Amino acid sequence: MALNIYENLLAGLQDRLERLERPPVITMTTDFGQYDGYVGTMKGVILTLLPDAVVVDISHDVMPQQIHQGAFTLYRAYRYFPASAIHIAVVDPGVGSERRPIVLVTRHGTFVGPDNGIFTYVLTAEQMPAYNRDLARRPAWAGGMWGVAPNWAGVAPPTGDLEPVEDAPMQYDDLPRAYHLVNPDYWLPSLSNTFHARDLFAPVAAHLASGAQPERMGEAVSLDSLATLPLSEPRVSGSGRGTTVVGQVVHIDRFGNIITNLPDGLLGPLLDDATAAPIVEIGDHRIFGLGTSYADVREGQPVALMGSEGLLEVAVRNANAAQRMKTRIGDPVRLIVNRPD
Amino acid sequence: MALNIYENLLAGLQDRLERLERPPVITMTTDFGQYDGYVGTMKGVILTLLPDAVVVDISHDVMPQQIHQGAFTLYRAYRYFPASAIHIAVVDPGVGSERRPIVLVTRHGTFVGPDNGIFTYVLTAEQMPAYNRDLARRPAWAGGMWGVAPNWAGVAPPTGDLEPVEDAPMQYDDLPRAYHLVNPDYWLPSLSNTFHARDLFAPVAAHLASGAQPERMGEAVSLDSLATLPLSEPRVSGSGRGTTVVGQVVHIDRFGNIITNLPDGLLGPLLDDATAAPIVEIGDHRIFGLGTSYADVREGQPVALMGSEGLLEVAVRNANAAQRMKTRIGDPVRLIVNRPD
Amino acid sequence: MALNIYENLLAGLQDRLERLERPPVITMTTDFGQYDGYVGTMKGVILTLLPDAVVVDISHDVMPQQIHQGAFTLYRAYRYFPASAIHIAVVDPGVGSERRPIVLVTRHGTFVGPDNGIFTYVLTAEQMPAYNRDLARRPAWAGGMWGVAPNWAGVAPPTGDLEPVEDAPMQYDDLPRAYHLVNPDYWLPSLSNTFHARDLFAPVAAHLASGAQPERMGEAVSLDSLATLPLSEPRVSGSGRGTTVVGQVVHIDRFGNIITNLPDGLLGPLLDDATAAPIVEIGDHRIFGLGTSYADVREGQPVALMGSEGLLEVAVRNANAAQRMKTRIGDPVRLIVNRPD
Repeated sequence: MALNIYENLLAGLQDRLERLERPPVITMTTDFGQYDGYVGTMKGVILTLLPDAVVVDISHDVMPQQIHQGAFTLYRAYRYFPASAIHIAVVDPGVGSERRPIVLVTRHGTFVGPDNGIFTYVLTAEQMPAYNRDLARRPAWAGGMWGVAPNWAGVAPPTGDLEPVEDAPMQYDDLPRAYHLVNPDYWLPSLSNTFHARDLFAPVAAHLASGAQPERMGEAVSLDSLATLPLSEPRVSGSGRGTTVVGQVVHIDRFGNIITNLPDGLLGPLLDDATAAPIVEIGDHRIFGLGTSYADVREGQPVALMGSEGLLEVAVRNANAAQRMKTRIGDPVRLIVNRPD
Repeated sequence: MALNIYENLLAGLQDRLERLERPPVITMTTDFGQYDGYVGTMKGVILTLLPDAVVVDISHDVMPQQIHQGAFTLYRAYRYFPASAIHIAVVDPGVGSERRPIVLVTRHGTFVGPDNGIFTYVLTAEQMPAYNRDLARRPAWAGGMWGVAPNWAGVAPPTGDLEPVEDAPMQYDDLPRAYHLVNPDYWLPSLSNTFHARDLFAPVAAHLASGAQPERMGEAVSLDSLATLPLSEPRVSGSGRGTTVVGQVVHIDRFGNIITNLPDGLLGPLLDDATAAPIVEIGDHRIFGLGTSYADVREGQPVALMGSEGLLEVAVRNANAAQRMKTRIGDPVRLIVNRPD
Repeated sequence: MALNIYENLLAGLQDRLERLERPPVITMTTDFGQYDGYVGTMKGVILTLLPDAVVVDISHDVMPQQIHQGAFTLYRAYRYFPASAIHIAVVDPGVGSERRPIVLVTRHGTFVGPDNGIFTYVLTAEQMPAYNRDLARRPAWAGGMWGVAPNWAGVAPPTGDLEPVEDAPMQYDDLPRAYHLVNPDYWLPSLSNTFHARDLFAPVAAHLASGAQPERMGEAVSLDSLATLPLSEPRVSGSGRGTTVVGQVVHIDRFGNIITNLPDGLLGPLLDDATAAPIVEIGDHRIFGLGTSYADVREGQPVALMGSEGLLEVAVRNANAAQRMKTRIGDPVRLIVNRPD
């Protein structure tokens, strides 16, 4: 063999190595549970099509048919994955009916699932203006999407062989974009009416992760045409020296911690301005002041604090707050702040 | 170095790359739950022996000691994995007693577990005659095993770098074959009496996935000698102008959907012939006509349809049918069809 | 290109291939459940930093805030992983408070988590003297740590391309060592007060798995300074011709099997000496003799035996022993042995 043949061969080997060193990531968020093997079946389809895929479970314990819960769970997690990840989300009571199967391409991930509102939070977040295009292409937690100062991303990586993956998967400038999946070439040959996750969404995700263009899979649709869930917005009202913010419980986690829709960004300025400790009201309970960690209070005592997602949270130390307070998703939560005269 | 040394080195590198691009898949179906770390321990054994293995959970939530449920769960999932996959299935109340540990090699996968009936469905399916040898070597869902027209497998793959994996793992012609695992060289050095999944089945699966021949692991045994569960067959009876098919509930899934043992292949011709909508009877409930998706009926209403496995299924839209109808596994289900005079 | 350039290129490719053939393993043991996506989020962080990591769940179903249960679950599993594995363990009711985040480096694995006692069992086991340094560097189950005769490790591996991974990750001689994690360069840029598993432990584990030295991540601390849980030791008392060993229930597994803290090593010599069958007392129940497998007794009957971890266990065949016997963790268990005159 001539030397230039070696050069080509070596270049080919290097390309394959690079691909293997960053295997494609596909995540799943469903209400399928672990009981029936539905999730394992989807992984079989993906690995048959794309043997080196890395499949990550976000949650399969979304309560049956609870689209909002799936949407919120996906939203909290996707920001911590590489922007090149493909996210399958299937809470799909309308499977086999008129609802459209879609793919949604954003700067921080590509999403596959039914057009029934499960992408509501992702879509809202990804449509927020990005102040800094450069940051916007980074993994979300490196500081991009949320405008957090990138105190880490700016310095040299601390070890020799490790640096955050910053691959922006798409060459488009106008993201997000959505497509209605209509091309059966990318599905399993036989499409059931009750398990599109296996027959349609899993193979589409495998094809996307292997580099197939979404344009070939379906028709572009406008973002406005996508189904979204009605999200309740926090209400701020002031009377004289006090300000009251009324929000809602949006999630109760495994520990019974009560997560609200009151964000850091809204409450922060109010709290800076306050003359006295804020009061959090939930059901019959009043909590005075905000803590910083669960261990701020004694065992069995309630504490309100900013949770890990930047949302106001109510917990009881070493106990289940939602059970103690008989709280349910959708319940109102009030934060009362007193201003200086 | 001389050039032919490079050629050999390059060929070696290419072989290793090819192996990495299609890492060996090992699945697990057990009644171990996720609570105790038993499953994680098995994965530790596998990864210690075979570091590049891809281990996929099918289900660990089979109810304790329910061999039939494990057998059915495995059966529904394995057909969607590459034919080269190794499937560990352990619902094993007789662990440490006389029951034999076995490996079962089939055209569509290799199975490791106790000889207690957990492979009943797989064995039945794999012993069905394959009409087309070519199809029979494909992954099951590509159309092989079930005789579905391979509308996808026949065309060029839709993307440049992705095609279904069709590796038939074995060179044998007379599959399935079974072996009684008696060679402790392939087990952990110390065999407990209560956790063969860790000490025997996991290392055997790792060795199989790395290419070891089952002949070296144990003694060939006849398929007839394998333990099988008694499966109830649907009964068809006709009287005058009507036909009644009586089957059984074989599974109730996480959603409460009721899955029966009445297959598409049996019901299809009857339904084609019918003059009126069929009636499905289950417990005190009668459902008129078959739907095509869960969303065919109003919220809270029952619907009978062909499920994603080609089995008759009864569901209630956005609710738990089994709870509503007080249905249990083993309950009878009747499909009544009227024929033309 | 000159030939020596090829040699260097080929050597580089081979290094990368070797790394890919033994991808870094990171395990997780937490009380996070699967419900909220917390675990998936941690995996996103790890895969963003270290795309070829293999992440294995040991258990996420540790009961909320039950540090002892997490410690025991981790202990039972870690011995079956490669010594190069990084183990994240987070049952962390004190998150965001004074408790230290630590890394613990041992001969059989590296551990990351809060300094709250979750490493109690690991630390105890790893501080036991190793009789044979050579064995001590092997994966635990190959016989090293527990002094089991390495009947497998001594012979040639049974297949051509598979042998146990015996990489000792560290060059230190004086292990275990511990470090207080204080260097935020190895954390996510923004540290929440309630989710250190995502913001601190996951990225630290990814950095460790990629080869970063723990010395750069924090300050060495003495093993004596680490928090440990008070473990109850079995008590042996003899009176005349009988010996009584009193222990405790330490774990109840998914099957309801009751696992005690009475080890093989303690009971073995007593049983060898006995003139009659031993008696196991638990609550109001007395079990005569030790069995060897669950199937030693009739359906529904209790059996005492040595479990897969070398600890005395009480089970009921095909039923839930803990429910039948109303047993709880911490309950006393007695083994009574009669000696010859």
